[in-house]
Amino acid sequence: MTLVSRVLGGKAEEIGAAATTVASIRRTAADLGYVPNATARILRGVSSRTLGVVVYDFEDPFLGALIGALQRLAHREDHTLVLTGFEQRREDPDALRPLAKHGISGLIIVGSGGRENWLEAFLARGLPVARIGTSPGATHATVAVDSARGIAALLRHLSSRGIRRVGFIADALPAHRERRRVFEEQAAALGFGSRPEWGVTRSESGAAAGLQATRELLGRGGERPQALLAAGDAIAIGVLRALQESGLAVPEAMAVTGFDDLPLAEALTPALTTIRQPVAELARTAFAWVAGAGPARAGTAPQVLLPGELVVRESA
Amino acid sequence: MTLVSRVLGGKAEEIGAAATTVASIRRTAADLGYVPNATARILRGVSSRTLGVVVYDFEDPFLGALIGALQRLAHREDHTLVLTGFEQRREDPDALRPLAKHGISGLIIVGSGGRENWLEAFLARGLPVARIGTSPGATHATVAVDSARGIAALLRHLSSRGIRRVGFIADALPAHRERRRVFEEQAAALGFGSRPEWGVTRSESGAAAGLQATRELLGRGGERPQALLAAGDAIAIGVLRALQESGLAVPEAMAVTGFDDLPLAEALTPALTTIRQPVAELARTAFAWVAGAGPARAGTAPQVLLPGELVVRESA
Repeated sequence: MTLVSRVLGGKAEEIGAAATTVASIRRTAADLGYVPNATARILRGVSSRTLGVVVYDFEDPFLGALIGALQRLAHREDHTLVLTGFEQRREDPDALRPLAKHGISGLIIVGSGGRENWLEAFLARGLPVARIGTSPGATHATVAVDSARGIAALLRHLSSRGIRRVGFIADALPAHRERRRVFEEQAAALGFGSRPEWGVTRSESGAAAGLQATRELLGRGGERPQALLAAGDAIAIGVLRALQESGLAVPEAMAVTGFDDLPLAEALTPALTTIRQPVAELARTAFAWVAGAGPARAGTAPQVLLPGELVVRESA
Repeated sequence: MTLVSRVLGGKAEEIGAAATTVASIRRTAADLGYVPNATARILRGVSSRTLGVVVYDFEDPFLGALIGALQRLAHREDHTLVLTGFEQRREDPDALRPLAKHGISGLIIVGSGGRENWLEAFLARGLPVARIGTSPGATHATVAVDSARGIAALLRHLSSRGIRRVGFIADALPAHRERRRVFEEQAAALGFGSRPEWGVTRSESGAAAGLQATRELLGRGGERPQALLAAGDAIAIGVLRALQESGLAVPEAMAVTGFDDLPLAEALTPALTTIRQPVAELARTAFAWVAGAGPARAGTAPQVLLPGELVVRESA
């Protein structure tokens, strides 16, 4: 087997070819119009260098950034992405047919999830699988932002501003339910006062959930928390809106924090104090696991949490 | 060729098989674990029922909704999506290799664009191509929201509120530059007063562009417009922020409008008056063209504009 065919067959790494040589061979092949057809490669028993991407939620405000990051990595490493996803987060095995059709060499799941039955067939085949997000009791590799560490950082920050009474606003996404659970644990551990009625989870999504939940909380009367933690930045937009309707100044009468650091967080009025998701690193970790010889391929199932960064702005 | 093999080969429509029969055959095949392998189909000369999706901008706030809508259609019509995209909107032919590798049967481009050289090879092969977005002088099918009609609706609405002096805030996206051009035309046609210095385009993207552009406009002093039209909702968030910094009440001292109707537009303070993008219909039109026997396949290149809906809220 020649060096050129090894490189074009995606086996350059096995013979330790220099990166510049590999790049030069690929460029020449491209100039000649040569494309390593996925079908021909599968028939030769060579890895298809094709990653399936299963999206749990197309309304995730991070989806574009994550898929963009994965696409950049795939492009750089000469892999391609076949996209599929579930309707309204329902794990429908039928949605997975594209992955069989294109003979994928690895699977990246984008989004936290629940039932994992649909994954068993992939894991049984020894296919490398990595999830960006969490899944209770996952037997596959997962990488996600460390919610507990992020919430603790927000609570310590609020505490440094003299805040002791805190509430939590969420929608029904699995990742947000998990953040609410973590909030309750952390608030108790750090000695904060938090009443059950200061935690509100709504079934709407994003800003609509934040708006309705905060209206509900304020409408009940009685003692109010001094700060509301929103499970995500999109939710925080609705929280800010509800507080403005009630004439409560932020952060003076009520501090507000988000989670995610979406591009718009900085431009909100007031600008949002939040936890920055390590988007590039999440994508890099999952990609390396399924495209390389990482732990996902070795059959282990690491559950990795990456720290998010506290970004302090005006809202708290 | 049996009915079953025709159905599984994606040729049911040619023999006019009943939809229920087709569904039943597909269900049986799925229960038996049969997957029509894309490779085998290509070797038999059968359409791969695989659509390439080329994304111009992974930071487009609409990307998730559009890709989600395309994925739902693909799933329903038994097609699969292979995803690729450009880095920072640069049309790099190298990014298109996945499309050759997977033997696509059609191409959907997501995003407005400029240079089209990279497309020639696809069009020359007679491959159906459709773009969601516009492209100057496109020789392929395009479908987009009708910016001129949307901007005219916003201007008529502002006029009905007694507003005569209007400005425009944009970032450097091709679609937004086009909206600014259309704004200048429409504002003149409808007899609005608009000065060149009331139109500001910034190279930042989204909210950051809105924030910097509005600061720039207000910082110049002199007579101010009564309303600022933002080229997109994300930009409007930055416009609102800059006005709030300057102590200008919205809409009393300055009305603000967006374009897109992102999910968060309703929850902003004040809630945003904007034009709703017909997301589902954009996806449906492009998908039908490339997956069906529509105009894209027939070699014509329709340029279709769909109306957006004026949504009046508090900001104007």
